[in-house]
Amino acid sequence: MSDIAVVLPDGSELGVPEGATLEDVAYEIGPGLGDDTVAGKIEGELVDKATPVSDGDRIEIVTDQSDEYLSVLRHSAAHVFAQALLRLYDDAKLTIGPWTEEGFYYDITGVDLDEGDLREIEDEMQEIVDADYDIERVVYDREDAVAKYEDDNEYKLDILGREADEAEVSFYEQAEFEDLCQGPHVESTGEIGAFRLLNISSSYWRGDEENDTLTRVHGTAFEKESDLEEFLTMREEAKERDHRKLGQELDLFSIPTVTGPGLPLYHPNGKTILKELEEYGESMNEEYGYDYVETPHLFRTELWKQSGHYDNYVDDMFLLDVNDEEYGLKPMNCPGHATIFEQNSWSYRDLPVRYAENGKVYRKEQRGELSGLSRVWAFTIDDGHLFVRPEQIESEVNDIMAMINDVLETFDLDYEVALATRPEKSVGGDEIWEKAESQLESVLENANMEYELEAGDGAFYGPKIDFAFTDALGRKWDGPTVQLDFNMPERFDLSYTGEDNEDHRPVMIHRALYGSFERFFMVLIEHYDGKFPLWLAPEQVRILPISDDELGYAHRLKNDLEDAEFRVDIEDRSWTLGRKIREAQDDRVPYMLVVGSDEAEAGTVSVRDRKEREQQDVELDSFIDHLSDERAEKREEPDFLD
Amino acid sequence: MSDIAVVLPDGSELGVPEGATLEDVAYEIGPGLGDDTVAGKIEGELVDKATPVSDGDRIEIVTDQSDEYLSVLRHSAAHVFAQALLRLYDDAKLTIGPWTEEGFYYDITGVDLDEGDLREIEDEMQEIVDADYDIERVVYDREDAVAKYEDDNEYKLDILGREADEAEVSFYEQAEFEDLCQGPHVESTGEIGAFRLLNISSSYWRGDEENDTLTRVHGTAFEKESDLEEFLTMREEAKERDHRKLGQELDLFSIPTVTGPGLPLYHPNGKTILKELEEYGESMNEEYGYDYVETPHLFRTELWKQSGHYDNYVDDMFLLDVNDEEYGLKPMNCPGHATIFEQNSWSYRDLPVRYAENGKVYRKEQRGELSGLSRVWAFTIDDGHLFVRPEQIESEVNDIMAMINDVLETFDLDYEVALATRPEKSVGGDEIWEKAESQLESVLENANMEYELEAGDGAFYGPKIDFAFTDALGRKWDGPTVQLDFNMPERFDLSYTGEDNEDHRPVMIHRALYGSFERFFMVLIEHYDGKFPLWLAPEQVRILPISDDELGYAHRLKNDLEDAEFRVDIEDRSWTLGRKIREAQDDRVPYMLVVGSDEAEAGTVSVRDRKEREQQDVELDSFIDHLSDERAEKREEPDFLD
Repeated sequence: MSDIAVVLPDGSELGVPEGATLEDVAYEIGPGLGDDTVAGKIEGELVDKATPVSDGDRIEIVTDQSDEYLSVLRHSAAHVFAQALLRLYDDAKLTIGPWTEEGFYYDITGVDLDEGDLREIEDEMQEIVDADYDIERVVYDREDAVAKYEDDNEYKLDILGREADEAEVSFYEQAEFEDLCQGPHVESTGEIGAFRLLNISSSYWRGDEENDTLTRVHGTAFEKESDLEEFLTMREEAKERDHRKLGQELDLFSIPTVTGPGLPLYHPNGKTILKELEEYGESMNEEYGYDYVETPHLFRTELWKQSGHYDNYVDDMFLLDVNDEEYGLKPMNCPGHATIFEQNSWSYRDLPVRYAENGKVYRKEQRGELSGLSRVWAFTIDDGHLFVRPEQIESEVNDIMAMINDVLETFDLDYEVALATRPEKSVGGDEIWEKAESQLESVLENANMEYELEAGDGAFYGPKIDFAFTDALGRKWDGPTVQLDFNMPERFDLSYTGEDNEDHRPVMIHRALYGSFERFFMVLIEHYDGKFPLWLAPEQVRILPISDDELGYAHRLKNDLEDAEFRVDIEDRSWTLGRKIREAQDDRVPYMLVVGSDEAEAGTVSVRDRKEREQQDVELDSFIDHLSDERAEKREEPDFLD
Repeated sequence: MSDIAVVLPDGSELGVPEGATLEDVAYEIGPGLGDDTVAGKIEGELVDKATPVSDGDRIEIVTDQSDEYLSVLRHSAAHVFAQALLRLYDDAKLTIGPWTEEGFYYDITGVDLDEGDLREIEDEMQEIVDADYDIERVVYDREDAVAKYEDDNEYKLDILGREADEAEVSFYEQAEFEDLCQGPHVESTGEIGAFRLLNISSSYWRGDEENDTLTRVHGTAFEKESDLEEFLTMREEAKERDHRKLGQELDLFSIPTVTGPGLPLYHPNGKTILKELEEYGESMNEEYGYDYVETPHLFRTELWKQSGHYDNYVDDMFLLDVNDEEYGLKPMNCPGHATIFEQNSWSYRDLPVRYAENGKVYRKEQRGELSGLSRVWAFTIDDGHLFVRPEQIESEVNDIMAMINDVLETFDLDYEVALATRPEKSVGGDEIWEKAESQLESVLENANMEYELEAGDGAFYGPKIDFAFTDALGRKWDGPTVQLDFNMPERFDLSYTGEDNEDHRPVMIHRALYGSFERFFMVLIEHYDGKFPLWLAPEQVRILPISDDELGYAHRLKNDLEDAEFRVDIEDRSWTLGRKIREAQDDRVPYMLVVGSDEAEAGTVSVRDRKEREQQDVELDSFIDHLSDERAEKREEPDFLD
């Protein structure tokens, strides 16, 4: 007789004996699956197959056919790296070595490595892979584990002291190597088909600048050599497209030392693109009934205490003293919007109320972590905050999903969706959580949207829907989020009068389409390699007169194009046509109009696009008509010459 | 033989003996003018007629026909108040009592006055006016002056110590009253035709919160009773229109205690108006070739040291410490724009470069001086900064003047223009100052613009053109400014390569059309009494269904109007039509559409405007067409029913 039950991915329940492990569950489902099991997931978390399940757990079995297998393999590759390192360097000390989106890293100390050393370590790693050692999970008593590290590794002792509060802790061992680790891992080192050590950076123990500086070795691993090759090609391409490099080449933005780190200045080209993004977002907000509001960047910290951000966020806030009172730059726009809502009295007929603001927020990231536009101190969120009646959640979230879908499709970004539900610790009663979660599920199901259920991964104040999208280089990015919030309305004592004439608490919805403009802009720069679609391109058309004789004609063309609201420049430097074309190509201008005496006489233009296609003898009117369509439809690439 | 020469308003020179006073100059011009002289101006500053002139002074004679006469008369009214006060209150102490734009005030201490006391003081003032005492200027040795105040007035002693560094100081005396004062004053108390004490507020000695608190009594005075009556009527009207009152009634903005003083939050209605203003400004900036940029609100103070703002402005800046470095919120947008310019290399062909940003700036005004939107900590400037070749000043300033003229005409604001030229202390050589000033004069003369020459009143870093406009209540406001700047390009070492292949220094031009959005918005609220023109009105049309039966028809109308991009609401509360109309009237909605069963059947509307005019049986299409024109032309008042 089974005495507990687990929930399988299809929602069905399976009874298993108390104390059963994930592997046992797999054998219960079928002996083949049991044999193939590499690891498993409990409530969304990847764990070793030896982990016991509890009653009610949502579980998943991971085999070498699962998406998660690659993460497990990379985790093992980190161990192979560590083993090779210890073979080569007696003084090396290990700290932590997790898998990542792109591969793995290991933070080490006691050695001073350069790129050449990485090649040697790779050779040693290859020996270990070729030897195909079994990888074994071994469980020790805590005291025995402590004894292993007592003499020479204060970091592992720190982990044992802080995190491993169980009486027994797991190690993974392969040949002479062993490492304190919760797993999971593949069965043997031979499963690692291809790997590469990528680069060396520095880090801090536990990510804290106050702690020891460590050396972080980044690597990656794949099942097949061809996958590794593809990854490395994409990685080279990504370097070429690095937004910091293109940002300077295309004169989009800068972050000069004199003005401060993490505080970008947008030059005209960059701001033109931002403005187009803002306008696109605004047109959507208008269509869906949002009202714009404006809040300052400076607030008394009283507000952040009321909202609860002060308790959790104070280390990331820029604080200042004004007349002996504490003020802070806003790290979020929501408390300002809640304050605006709070100042009116509302009837159920007024809801939903939808506020929008492109609000610049300030968060004090550690200086070492700042990087181009991807990690900054100042960034603008296209924030939307909705105040809705509980029964309005479904229709509002439905609209928001449509807006997000529009945005991601416009930029040709594939995406995945996840629903994160109530965590163990949460505010708000059962009724509101159930009502909210079932409405979010309805939205996803009615839209026939595939989604991953991240059970228990919601914020303590409400469930959310997360988007993750993939760019042209195959990189995955965290995307827009729709976050319900039962907590802030409590903290600000927000209310509306219901049909029953009683006071009711609205639900708040946080949403952003782009999220941070800075990060989205960064992704777009690299996604497009700076070859922005016509509607975004800072310079949409460049006129290239063959000689100064055509300057007059060039100016007439420019006027006509500007009347149709295109951004146009004339290349009037005394260069050869070849050089003018190369320069325009480097600047990623979608269209070039070459005009010589023939064109000036005939009143036509020769069109050339940045895909290096050409057509002569084009009527300006038909060119403008086409461009207007291309812009209005936000098409991705110049297609007049398709 | 005369040995010095002064410059008269018409530009001609007049020779006068060394030591001549303004009154002497007037007699030199003509005995009639000499007899009529009340006071005079030297280099734009209003002074007593007994003031000696120096060689080269630009002078003006003030008679009772001059605009400045009213200021002189109000200054004397302040003395009459002081005399009456001292007659009634033995313990009263006088500090300073200047004239103002609206009248005068006197800061006093030693008495505790209420509104009733003001009426009593007015009675005493009337006695003094009726007695028509001569007002005499008397000059004392400094020691004698000090002796007068030594026992009982530390404020006057402070003035004598700090300001009056001459060996002799002037007093003005009327009957038993005397006051340390530089004048000028009218000849006798009887000239004050009408006066009124207005209200009591508090102030600080020398405006500094650290000093003693004083009582400020505000009053006004005119030549004629009828002028006073008109002023008082306008003042009542201004109270009714107070933007703080209307801001709350029309739900435009708020400045809640929890978020901080001087830090306004814009509600949807207010932000809608701001967005329309922003878009109007942007359309003009686009037309005139400005490029938008974006800069953060936080900068290292290094930047403010480089720009020179730190030295002059640090007390008004919000400073904070970040990782042991000093940062500041930006009080100005210009240094950020100069930094962007500085990061490119420029050819003479690239200039002028024109940057625009609606940048929110932060200035720490004293808390006691904060008031609604007129004095705030955070305000947004529609800043424009141009980097031009010296010979481009004229054409660029010409364009800027055209933009400013457009803006002020759009809001039906009459304006006056002044040209402020090189002060005694200045940076930049003679050549650039002369070139710049002559170009500014050309602009004004070619535009046939009357302007006042404020000789020597320019900033130390460049000459400027100032606009002052008058609102519907007859109040004068500082308006847009066009400021040339020879200093910041030096400090940021800005340069461009000239046709001669050498490095040259550009001239920077600072300009704003609205100036601070906050202050301009405040003026508009009061100027229009909240009755915004259609293009600005947050709610442009309100549909008033007579009963719930017409709700469906009302929604169809709303959709049609929204398709034409109008902001429309339906009044669907179960109120009488009368109440619905009153509410819409209170909310200043330009147009109401009353729909009953007749309209629903005929597919028409009854139009009512906020000027309480009505027309029945109107086709929606013709209404929409008219509205579109009214909006596009930014007409001031609903005029469909004209």
